Amino acid sequence: MAADRTEVSARAAATCVLTLCLVCLHVSALKSQLFTRTGGLPYSSEPPISYKTFYFDQKVDHFGFLEDDTFKQRYLVADKHWQQPGGPVLFYTGNEGDITWFCNNTGFMWEVAEELGAMLVFAEHRYYGESLPFGQDSYSDSKHLNYLTAEQALADFAVLIQNLKNTLPGAQQSPVIAVGGSYGGMLAAWFRMKYPNVVAGALAASAPIWQFPGMVPCGDFYKIVTQDFARSGYNCDANIRKSWKAINNVSSTVSGLQWLSEEFSLCAPLKTIIDVIGFKNWLQETWVNLAMVDYPYEANFLQPLPRWPIQVVCKNLAFDSNVSDYQLLHGVSQAAKVYYNYTGSSSCLNTSQTATGSLGALGWTYQACTEMVMPMCTDGVQDMFEPEDWNFQAFSDECKAMFGVRPRADWAGTVFGGKEIASHSNIIFSNGGLDPWSAGGVTHNITDSLISIMIPDGAHHLDLRYSNDLDPPSVRAARALEVKYFRQWIKKAKKTHRTA
Amino acid sequence: MAADRTEVSARAAATCVLTLCLVCLHVSALKSQLFTRTGGLPYSSEPPISYKTFYFDQKVDHFGFLEDDTFKQRYLVADKHWQQPGGPVLFYTGNEGDITWFCNNTGFMWEVAEELGAMLVFAEHRYYGESLPFGQDSYSDSKHLNYLTAEQALADFAVLIQNLKNTLPGAQQSPVIAVGGSYGGMLAAWFRMKYPNVVAGALAASAPIWQFPGMVPCGDFYKIVTQDFARSGYNCDANIRKSWKAINNVSSTVSGLQWLSEEFSLCAPLKTIIDVIGFKNWLQETWVNLAMVDYPYEANFLQPLPRWPIQVVCKNLAFDSNVSDYQLLHGVSQAAKVYYNYTGSSSCLNTSQTATGSLGALGWTYQACTEMVMPMCTDGVQDMFEPEDWNFQAFSDECKAMFGVRPRADWAGTVFGGKEIASHSNIIFSNGGLDPWSAGGVTHNITDSLISIMIPDGAHHLDLRYSNDLDPPSVRAARALEVKYFRQWIKKAKKTHRTA
Repeated sequence: MAADRTEVSARAAATCVLTLCLVCLHVSALKSQLFTRTGGLPYSSEPPISYKTFYFDQKVDHFGFLEDDTFKQRYLVADKHWQQPGGPVLFYTGNEGDITWFCNNTGFMWEVAEELGAMLVFAEHRYYGESLPFGQDSYSDSKHLNYLTAEQALADFAVLIQNLKNTLPGAQQSPVIAVGGSYGGMLAAWFRMKYPNVVAGALAASAPIWQFPGMVPCGDFYKIVTQDFARSGYNCDANIRKSWKAINNVSSTVSGLQWLSEEFSLCAPLKTIIDVIGFKNWLQETWVNLAMVDYPYEANFLQPLPRWPIQVVCKNLAFDSNVSDYQLLHGVSQAAKVYYNYTGSSSCLNTSQTATGSLGALGWTYQACTEMVMPMCTDGVQDMFEPEDWNFQAFSDECKAMFGVRPRADWAGTVFGGKEIASHSNIIFSNGGLDPWSAGGVTHNITDSLISIMIPDGAHHLDLRYSNDLDPPSVRAARALEVKYFRQWIKKAKKTHRTA
Repeated sequence: MAADRTEVSARAAATCVLTLCLVCLHVSALKSQLFTRTGGLPYSSEPPISYKTFYFDQKVDHFGFLEDDTFKQRYLVADKHWQQPGGPVLFYTGNEGDITWFCNNTGFMWEVAEELGAMLVFAEHRYYGESLPFGQDSYSDSKHLNYLTAEQALADFAVLIQNLKNTLPGAQQSPVIAVGGSYGGMLAAWFRMKYPNVVAGALAASAPIWQFPGMVPCGDFYKIVTQDFARSGYNCDANIRKSWKAINNVSSTVSGLQWLSEEFSLCAPLKTIIDVIGFKNWLQETWVNLAMVDYPYEANFLQPLPRWPIQVVCKNLAFDSNVSDYQLLHGVSQAAKVYYNYTGSSSCLNTSQTATGSLGALGWTYQACTEMVMPMCTDGVQDMFEPEDWNFQAFSDECKAMFGVRPRADWAGTVFGGKEIASHSNIIFSNGGLDPWSAGGVTHNITDSLISIMIPDGAHHLDLRYSNDLDPPSVRAARALEVKYFRQWIKKAKKTHRTA
């Protein structure tokens, strides 16, 4: 019935919007429990790393005094190269996932620790990994989720650092530099903005601090994804753009649904129109993820992948425009399997993977449904996706149904400064030209000390990863410049302390 | 009994500490309902002022999404001189009291509005005046008080300004300057620190942003009070220092208690040792209040008072050291009546005045019991008061008993920057040399744009008051300099907007 279809479409649209704006960040959390560095990096040649794990008693609520309980915030410390007293601290502002995963995937910090004589601290974000304010009940309802905000997380970081400085011999005069990538990069930048008394500077890698309402066009994100595919193989973006209609055509019959399910080796066969919508969302997420992790060497960030994975994907999609729907979708399935089955170990593909989620995914969905309102849209012309407007009301309704809360569209812009951040200082915003999140990033210098570093050949925070023989010169230069600023900030902070 | 006495003393000590650190700020709130400008400024010759009253729907909780209710925040607008579009806004960051009282007592803003072409906005602080998040239940328990914090108040101000800019024709490009005195001055400074995207600069008048644990010596506040009395009359501080022992001596007998009660025309006669402790606290508060309002002309801020009121007070205390306890206390009672009965309209003096409090007083007590932990102490040597150490634990226990919450001693320093504020910009810290709150103020330039202005002959935020023929040259110079900086900030903000 027409009414039913409308209802389904509206709901699907909202879900889609929700999923779109979450996938790229929440997938990292989702995968955090699957691939840790010690167990899951078959392609790395990095030296072994060593840290100690600690737990700090944090207030559940920094901004109210009724709730006076505490929880154990996990943090990791590596002080092998720390030159005390007063040696600097590189402090990773943990994002939406298990902190050991970020620790293992931020080789840059491990590589520069020795030359800076720095201690490394990786602080877990509340509600992720082991840092659960109410243990297993943390996600039970909106009451328990109420303390999951960026402001609370920043306060955790500030209180933790103040405590380390007050209790750790030799740390009192140590300049602290915040480092983070993606949402962790946003936190690093905001941390310097809100607590310049605590951190001397921040490296915000691939941090889309402007991916909020009214700051950047909602379509830029998917344009960049599309450009990545367009430049990686003949007709690659055009064939993905055509694939949505092909899926609609093929899935209109029962036999077509069966064919699609078998062709994509789906664990759960497609049966309804809602399944097909979910299937298309899943494919769309796949292309986005590939754009994020289009690294120049074999790597295992979100999945184990070959070097320049989009080029490999696109080899399966280099058709001329006259292929049949079935030929086209065979290519798409082969392309998807590059992402999901590069190691050949997957017996079937699970399209509900990002929909069910882990704690990390659920946490980020809640954050997107409250503060982290990041408009996304597609038009099918400047990008290779089905047209979809940004619909705040539908998104808000979906959030209300899911969590019982509504997002506040303008709050992040008010509290974190929006585009009016020129009065702040000592923040590096690094962005990769291949990374769709650069659409919401700071990609030009704002002042002498609010610096943009572009890495044209880089995907999502490539600069934070271990160095690699196949690294492009642009990321090598970026890292060198980052360290140069670190040294400046450290020098200035020490001078200020001496004269204080 | 000894045990009882100990318990009473400990409790009294805590109460005393609590009262001490609150009085100077909370009295202003307390009095707010008694003296409004239209009804209570018999000595002023200021022109009539005119404003419109508005109410804005604010979120009860900016930092969590479970509580999504709103309340009506009151704000006052005067746009007679506003040069739209783009004329500046002077925004008073309301403190712990009825906003109309601050509006009426901040003549400086009214006097400079025309020359700056500025709109004036006076925003009421949540939980004070009419801006009660839960109406009459706002103070009913710690659950309802949970949203009374400076962070929430600052967020109110930010959201209100963003809304005004988005909805008021001609205001979108208007530079906003925050202005406040006392706690309102602290808010003005913190507002610029935390929301530089919203305000271009701040005038923080008599703002003790360093009156927090570990930042300044706890005894400095009372030293300044004492110096004010020492310089205002022969033996004035010495005789007040002696008066506490005299009170103890005289109050040790029933007839002495009766004599004291009659001598001071107390509404409620003293009967117990706890009454006497309360009586001494009340006297101590009186001397503190006089130090705050030691203005060079007749004025009615906390009470109707003569010009240089401490000099008038001290005329009653100019004894040699050999007077009897009764002679001394007669002088003290005459001195106290200068403060409480200058107009001759009080039939008796009420020593429970500050202890019972109004909503304003209760609200500030709650704030002192949570974030606004301001250590105070006396030694009886460098000051003229009974020795009293700062006892955080006793203070915390008192707060727990009173509100069910405990203060967090280090939080304000962490969240508001403590002494590490050099990276901020465009804040004027003005302080009066006579004002005890200057002990916790910023009294030296920190950078080129974190400016200290000292007014040696000034009491509590004299610069924010209407100009007066009897103003000392130092406050005239201060106001001129403040306006000069306002112009710089406005010019720079407009330039930034044009090039953005």
